[in-house]
Amino acid sequence: MAPNTERRIASVKSHLESKKLERTQPMQTPSPTESLAAERANPSFPIRELTYYLDGGEEDTKMNEKFMFELERDPLWRMDDHYNLTLPQVRERTLAKLRNVLHCLANESPEVFHKRLVLMGLVDPAFYTRLGVHSGLFFGTIQGQATPAQFEYWVKKGAMALNGITGCFAMTELGHGSNVAGLETTATFDEATDEFIIHTPTVTATKWWIGGAAHTATHTTAFAQLIVKGKNYGVKPFVVQLRDPNTFNLLPGINIGDIGKKMGRDGIDNGWIQFTYVRIPRQNMLMKFAQVTRTGEVIQPPLAQLAYGALIGGRVTMIRDSANYAKKALTIALRYAAVRRQFSSNPKQPETKILDYVIHQNRLLPLLAESIAVNFTSMEVLKLYNELMHKLQNSRPDQDLTETIELLKETHATTAGLKAFCTWNCLNAIEQCRQACGGHGYSGYTGLASMYSDFAVQCTWEGDNTILTLQTGRSLISNYLNIKRGRNVSKGFHYLKKAEQLSTLRCPGDDVASIANLETISEAWSVVAANAVKTSAEIYEAAKAKGISKDAALENCAVERLHAARMHSYGYIFNKFADAVRQAPESIRPVLTNLCLLYGLNTIKENAGEFLGCQYFTAAHLSIIREQVNHLCLVIRQDAIPLVDSFNYSDYIINSPLGRYDGNIYEAYFNLVKANNPQEPVPYFESVIRPILTANYSQTEIPDLEIDQE
Amino acid sequence: MAPNTERRIASVKSHLESKKLERTQPMQTPSPTESLAAERANPSFPIRELTYYLDGGEEDTKMNEKFMFELERDPLWRMDDHYNLTLPQVRERTLAKLRNVLHCLANESPEVFHKRLVLMGLVDPAFYTRLGVHSGLFFGTIQGQATPAQFEYWVKKGAMALNGITGCFAMTELGHGSNVAGLETTATFDEATDEFIIHTPTVTATKWWIGGAAHTATHTTAFAQLIVKGKNYGVKPFVVQLRDPNTFNLLPGINIGDIGKKMGRDGIDNGWIQFTYVRIPRQNMLMKFAQVTRTGEVIQPPLAQLAYGALIGGRVTMIRDSANYAKKALTIALRYAAVRRQFSSNPKQPETKILDYVIHQNRLLPLLAESIAVNFTSMEVLKLYNELMHKLQNSRPDQDLTETIELLKETHATTAGLKAFCTWNCLNAIEQCRQACGGHGYSGYTGLASMYSDFAVQCTWEGDNTILTLQTGRSLISNYLNIKRGRNVSKGFHYLKKAEQLSTLRCPGDDVASIANLETISEAWSVVAANAVKTSAEIYEAAKAKGISKDAALENCAVERLHAARMHSYGYIFNKFADAVRQAPESIRPVLTNLCLLYGLNTIKENAGEFLGCQYFTAAHLSIIREQVNHLCLVIRQDAIPLVDSFNYSDYIINSPLGRYDGNIYEAYFNLVKANNPQEPVPYFESVIRPILTANYSQTEIPDLEIDQE
Repeated sequence: MAPNTERRIASVKSHLESKKLERTQPMQTPSPTESLAAERANPSFPIRELTYYLDGGEEDTKMNEKFMFELERDPLWRMDDHYNLTLPQVRERTLAKLRNVLHCLANESPEVFHKRLVLMGLVDPAFYTRLGVHSGLFFGTIQGQATPAQFEYWVKKGAMALNGITGCFAMTELGHGSNVAGLETTATFDEATDEFIIHTPTVTATKWWIGGAAHTATHTTAFAQLIVKGKNYGVKPFVVQLRDPNTFNLLPGINIGDIGKKMGRDGIDNGWIQFTYVRIPRQNMLMKFAQVTRTGEVIQPPLAQLAYGALIGGRVTMIRDSANYAKKALTIALRYAAVRRQFSSNPKQPETKILDYVIHQNRLLPLLAESIAVNFTSMEVLKLYNELMHKLQNSRPDQDLTETIELLKETHATTAGLKAFCTWNCLNAIEQCRQACGGHGYSGYTGLASMYSDFAVQCTWEGDNTILTLQTGRSLISNYLNIKRGRNVSKGFHYLKKAEQLSTLRCPGDDVASIANLETISEAWSVVAANAVKTSAEIYEAAKAKGISKDAALENCAVERLHAARMHSYGYIFNKFADAVRQAPESIRPVLTNLCLLYGLNTIKENAGEFLGCQYFTAAHLSIIREQVNHLCLVIRQDAIPLVDSFNYSDYIINSPLGRYDGNIYEAYFNLVKANNPQEPVPYFESVIRPILTANYSQTEIPDLEIDQE
Repeated sequence: MAPNTERRIASVKSHLESKKLERTQPMQTPSPTESLAAERANPSFPIRELTYYLDGGEEDTKMNEKFMFELERDPLWRMDDHYNLTLPQVRERTLAKLRNVLHCLANESPEVFHKRLVLMGLVDPAFYTRLGVHSGLFFGTIQGQATPAQFEYWVKKGAMALNGITGCFAMTELGHGSNVAGLETTATFDEATDEFIIHTPTVTATKWWIGGAAHTATHTTAFAQLIVKGKNYGVKPFVVQLRDPNTFNLLPGINIGDIGKKMGRDGIDNGWIQFTYVRIPRQNMLMKFAQVTRTGEVIQPPLAQLAYGALIGGRVTMIRDSANYAKKALTIALRYAAVRRQFSSNPKQPETKILDYVIHQNRLLPLLAESIAVNFTSMEVLKLYNELMHKLQNSRPDQDLTETIELLKETHATTAGLKAFCTWNCLNAIEQCRQACGGHGYSGYTGLASMYSDFAVQCTWEGDNTILTLQTGRSLISNYLNIKRGRNVSKGFHYLKKAEQLSTLRCPGDDVASIANLETISEAWSVVAANAVKTSAEIYEAAKAKGISKDAALENCAVERLHAARMHSYGYIFNKFADAVRQAPESIRPVLTNLCLLYGLNTIKENAGEFLGCQYFTAAHLSIIREQVNHLCLVIRQDAIPLVDSFNYSDYIINSPLGRYDGNIYEAYFNLVKANNPQEPVPYFESVIRPILTANYSQTEIPDLEIDQE
């Protein structure tokens, strides 16, 4: 018999007793709004305190609230009628929003504007992408790779505030995405005219997926193979004008098309670009790193990797997005679950809220814990990133940059794996929330289907998740081997030393208290992650010992390397969550502790084989862990609605009748849908419906044939 | 050192040696078509034989080929231009196809027509749904629940062949989906006029998601609470006319609207229906089971569950769909992977096919094995279902139906869990294939994004996956307890007897041969599944022993019950696959054996904790299993393209440039996308783009104030 039957039964019994009461005094089903209000009667923690802590402080919360208020009232940001817009309508709206936000872009500090943008992105991811393509990618490239004079020139031209210049970022091609070094577009120096000739030599060299290119960009930063005097110097960035800003006609040699139908983010006009011998002045090559002189001398930078620090920013953003989108999805699914009733054991009783089913709790509440874990993780990663950016911006190529390069490597390794891990998990959370809304989850009005389609691209862009995870795995192997060789490694990798003590590390006790605590879980994950890294490093070293190349040896351990990076990410996120719990104000520490335990124990449950394999936990421990997951779900269920309330997203941001704060889901949903008045009869009535109604294919006339008549 | 390093290195070395060759004699990258052709040079098995075996025989293959040919040439079935159609255009096409298929519906045998329909569904799932709503649900209800006289009446009226009647199926409501017994719509008998009054008493009683209702149905089978003389007799089916077939105007008391934007399947017009005191003749209640006489006497059937046998058909179909959609998705992802090249260790060498990366093999090839496993499983389940249908159709309520009811229960339990398990896995396979196509997977033209959106509903409709899985779990507990009590159970549950020998059952040996064979894997899964069932049954019994109700006790073990059903499904599918391997023609048995081993070992790897927990496998065994998964991926990779070729889907069915048979992916993709000629400038140029180009928000004029001038 499972150890926890007593408690389970007690919970079910109290449920039944409240029903007995109802039987003697037949009770009406509470209305949807009453059902949701009841959830807020007795939260175990001060909701507002948690909001502040999740947002990073009271000031941030209040700023978010100001932004939400402004967005909700802005007629350009209307979101309740977007279900049946045509593609040009959607794109017009995106651009109208862009036009209007320029005022803020020009007048707010980058930090404040960024916070505004985060909320805008939660409402309209395509808008966020369109602005991000200009600011983050196009202008970000100029910022990161231009010389001071070039930078000044382009800012004066309007490249920062979109005054006369709207940019796009032409890196990927039809035939090349992840392998940037393999791009086929060429930039050939013509010394005679002091120009570069930008050219697309093949179909696969066509720039592809270029956001903003199809209809709305005047300029692009194009990445192309620098060819000088017949020699290829690798891929460099060039500013290329695409259109005349007055007429918007394409310039000579530029051919552009719309990339067409895609999974989501319809608001952004992704396009393809072909350059046919397009001439640009030499000065349009961004020369902070590599340089080409008037006479065609090429000066390559000593530390080319510094050029790519800026790419990390996008990944940091996506870790934060993973938390936010999951929080939004969970607000919808959990509020719905606290209102939706289905089945009861007695027809005289109200049906049971689906949130009261243990299976529904087990489906959603670990995801709730995960969203909070990623929330705290993203705040820590942002700190790491800001530190790096500060170092990079204050560095000059002539300095000793060893330390900066080390920090760059660590930040890259950390953010690469986490970007992949968190976006995959968030995509899963969105889909789980969608399915948890049953049939209504398939409706566009619920908001989760489009959230899935919009979010899915995060698993691929700015670094394919699989490739990024492998890169983190590679860094883990290298850190592990450094430790073995007695070298120094960053603090985040110190746990790898545990790999040497694997045979002795065991769970400190067999009772619930010894297992379900933050220190044990942290140690457990570090043991499992260290073991996974050790395994992949051993395969790598065995392969290398046979004399094959480093690349081949890494390929040799790819499966184990991917696995190691995943295990590392579990531990990393758990530790960031546990740190946040320890530093939390006392009033919210108990609820956060339960959430952190749920996150940790559930991840252990889902990877049970790892822990049994390392013998850190026994099968009996795992039984206790499974029971604890059930138990914590029951406990956290009581706070489920206060918890999503603490995420503090307004109904406007949620934009789903199922996720309304007041719980009046059915009326709101019906009223929205009712606006779809059917045209009766529909335009295709005469062409296809009437013929069906009058069709009669079963009687085929066949002429009589004399020979048959005998 | 991992045991398999030698083999791994050998594989990498041969790879390198072929590259050395290239280095001495610099080699051009093979073209896409050459790349794919090379994959077909040396298949290890006769492709055609496997096609026959997967399809169920040569005759079926040839019939499929005939259907594919017909579809491809039919102008109504054009699919290469559907990317930018408006909603009314999409729906008009659906109906045009429907109109055209009536000829076949009327003249072909149901078996042949059904096979045609399966292929049509792979091309256009929304069309399949629209016809399915009429034939399977509307007419299926009449077929299953009408008396002979009623059946004859509705067939004469045209309900079978859509002559003047197009039907929809009004079961779910805004407030009720899974709990059909809780529907709120009422059918009140009015003895005075011999009519039923169909009524929607509340907003939540609005019929919701009714496919075909919005614009195209004349009639519906509505499910409503039968109320006679003030007493409620539960939910029964009624035929209700919605529209005048001549004018298509709504009849009095009928209010209908379009359900609006949804995740996928735009071609079908889902609607909502409200009935306001709609009167229908008493004869429109379908009375094969419950009956209401002229004087308001209600005769309830002795075996109401027989009425729902027909619902199982949908689930059987969805298991087959799960195989077919996964096969289609894998054809796209694997052909792309054999053409797409990215990265190489030496710039002088062609880049590596992404299919040659072990991580890509590990991502896609277990899914390939799974799709084949489900293919064979669906064939077996269909046999079981046909047997049941035969029994049901030949049964009369006055017979002893114990045996039929037993078969119904078994078929329900089997198909419920498998429907859930297979649709979840297929949805995952589609998404994995989509992501495996990198950025291009996000394009609508790849076909995988819409496949995901269209398929996702299968996890919810005709039985929410979670609820169905719980039902299978319930049946497993009941069978387990029956075994413990010495009662007879169906053969499919005999393995549960193993639960009593768990402490002694161990893997028969420690070498690869003992582990990686069909019998061991089968036993391993039966041990794990039996253990999971035993655990949930023990929690259930412990709860019941405390005196709580059966329902409450089942709720008590819900998490473990869900888990048990999942473990059962793994074992079930593996066994069906292994049976198919054993019975396969000798020529294809080796390749199928490898696939079956990969399927089995990979599922063990992914659930390692279960096997370690039962002590069937040790950690050392699991190392061997992980190595074998890698090894089998390497072996099967050689046949990857011949294997998807054996699925035998024509380019028309695949409908994705990335999945073309000839491999000419880039040109085909570019040509398709190129058809999206951008309108230059776009319609919203003057309204939003030009204002952006000329905007200048940074200089705000501020009037001078005298007091500031001192």
